[in-house]
Amino acid sequence: MSVLIVGSTALDSIKTPQAENPRLLGGSASHASVAASFFGPVKLVGVVGADFPRRYLQLYERHGIDLQGLQVLPGKTFHWSGEYEANMNNRRTLLTELGVFETFNPTLPEAYRDTPFVLLANIAPALQHHVLDQMRRPRFVVADTMDLWLNVALPDLLKLVKRLDGFVLNDSEAQQLTGEGNVFVALKKIHRLGPTHVVIKQGSHGSILSSPQGLFICPAYPLRKVIDPTGAGDSFVGGMMGYLAAAKGPIDNHIRRAMTYGSVVASFCCEGFGLKRTTKITRAQIDGRVKELEQLTRF
Amino acid sequence: MSVLIVGSTALDSIKTPQAENPRLLGGSASHASVAASFFGPVKLVGVVGADFPRRYLQLYERHGIDLQGLQVLPGKTFHWSGEYEANMNNRRTLLTELGVFETFNPTLPEAYRDTPFVLLANIAPALQHHVLDQMRRPRFVVADTMDLWLNVALPDLLKLVKRLDGFVLNDSEAQQLTGEGNVFVALKKIHRLGPTHVVIKQGSHGSILSSPQGLFICPAYPLRKVIDPTGAGDSFVGGMMGYLAAAKGPIDNHIRRAMTYGSVVASFCCEGFGLKRTTKITRAQIDGRVKELEQLTRF
Repeated sequence: MSVLIVGSTALDSIKTPQAENPRLLGGSASHASVAASFFGPVKLVGVVGADFPRRYLQLYERHGIDLQGLQVLPGKTFHWSGEYEANMNNRRTLLTELGVFETFNPTLPEAYRDTPFVLLANIAPALQHHVLDQMRRPRFVVADTMDLWLNVALPDLLKLVKRLDGFVLNDSEAQQLTGEGNVFVALKKIHRLGPTHVVIKQGSHGSILSSPQGLFICPAYPLRKVIDPTGAGDSFVGGMMGYLAAAKGPIDNHIRRAMTYGSVVASFCCEGFGLKRTTKITRAQIDGRVKELEQLTRF
Repeated sequence: MSVLIVGSTALDSIKTPQAENPRLLGGSASHASVAASFFGPVKLVGVVGADFPRRYLQLYERHGIDLQGLQVLPGKTFHWSGEYEANMNNRRTLLTELGVFETFNPTLPEAYRDTPFVLLANIAPALQHHVLDQMRRPRFVVADTMDLWLNVALPDLLKLVKRLDGFVLNDSEAQQLTGEGNVFVALKKIHRLGPTHVVIKQGSHGSILSSPQGLFICPAYPLRKVIDPTGAGDSFVGGMMGYLAAAKGPIDNHIRRAMTYGSVVASFCCEGFGLKRTTKITRAQIDGRVKELEQLTRF
């Protein structure tokens, strides 16, 4: 089965202490779609400007990503610029130019509306709602978010969370949303907002799932060198949803392994700027790291 | 087989936002010995003053801990007092009275010198050396430490690390020791200092082992409420060494499970002030949480 992914499609200019990379292919939907594409068909929903490089469209195509839902409008592509500190954990935004995103009105192609798996990757909650409104009885709807929306669009976000099967956020966002520093108490509180499946991402410490089948502690793949963590969270949730959409049978039979696959794709993402590393890997390399993670956690 | 444990035997006065508990049984050797006692015989090396409550000696005895190596001297027992912030991660020391520890000269009873497993729990590196000097060909020697010794006794500590099979420290200590923020690079650097087995503790995120058999990512048991984390690290390494000493065959066949057992004993430790919760649990309860951890990490 296929997965529909909506989110930002952007140009990212990323500075680290080691290097500076202007106008990379970025955005939550780009990272999530490429990650999901290793497992099965992906339908992308997004918007880019007339300045969007042709080679980035070709990159999506090489990954078999359906671009019927990608609008190309007059104007500029969303451009984000950020700088990381030496430890790669703290980053600051240098510039945000919304461009064509400012007036983005995602209208789904008819062929998209029956997609069973829906990933509302990080983007304004109003747009996530708007996409979800156009779907016909999807099987499993998951949303990701970021601190910005907790600050500027909390009512929209809370309304969205009610409609979700799965909600993915990081530990500081979970603490901000619930006022609870203990991650396991925060998980309980987030369930009360609606979703049956809640995932809290903890960066290099992995992630935690709380579901009807209980908790799952998902490991992160050990990395000796992080080049650029931008998009790692999007790759995680994209890989997870791609794997789930490709699996047969009940969601709960596969979600743990799906998270592990997402975790591994995220590890590759961190090993290059933007999508540079992720776009060069193979399914066999992903399978290899998942096997390694099995070994690393067995006792 | 039995494990010899040297470390501090103390009275701890602990303040949290919820409560204040004066003169609890504490110290690295107390926590580690009680933790190890669930798995097999423990030989304690330490010193207490004339003020050491009789009921604490009885507590050690109830856990079958051999007290031949515990000196009772005129003077005051080592007294530590600390206060935790609301998040239970940050603490500050309010008071340290060394008492009889100031002149402690651990001399091992003859019956202790052939103990195959040796845990040099957190204490001045000079004392850890002194105990190790008195041992006859131990099979597996592990030391724990704390940031204090990195600051005030680094040369002694580095000399000790050369003599160890296993070295256990937390992530901030590993970073301080190696100047390396990436935990996997830090592990490599610590191996170069001597030990074949290095464990980095990451609090509620679990711990990581690097050994001749590669890496192991050890989970922490999920806790919704932490009452007092004092002694959790000591309980972890005590439980690990107790389990290892009781297991038959090569160390590397058992060390992963041993760490998981240590992690579970540490989780119980956090659920009460001082040793209040740890001293009430049974081996069956420990086994139960280890089984749960197996379920929580399987994918």
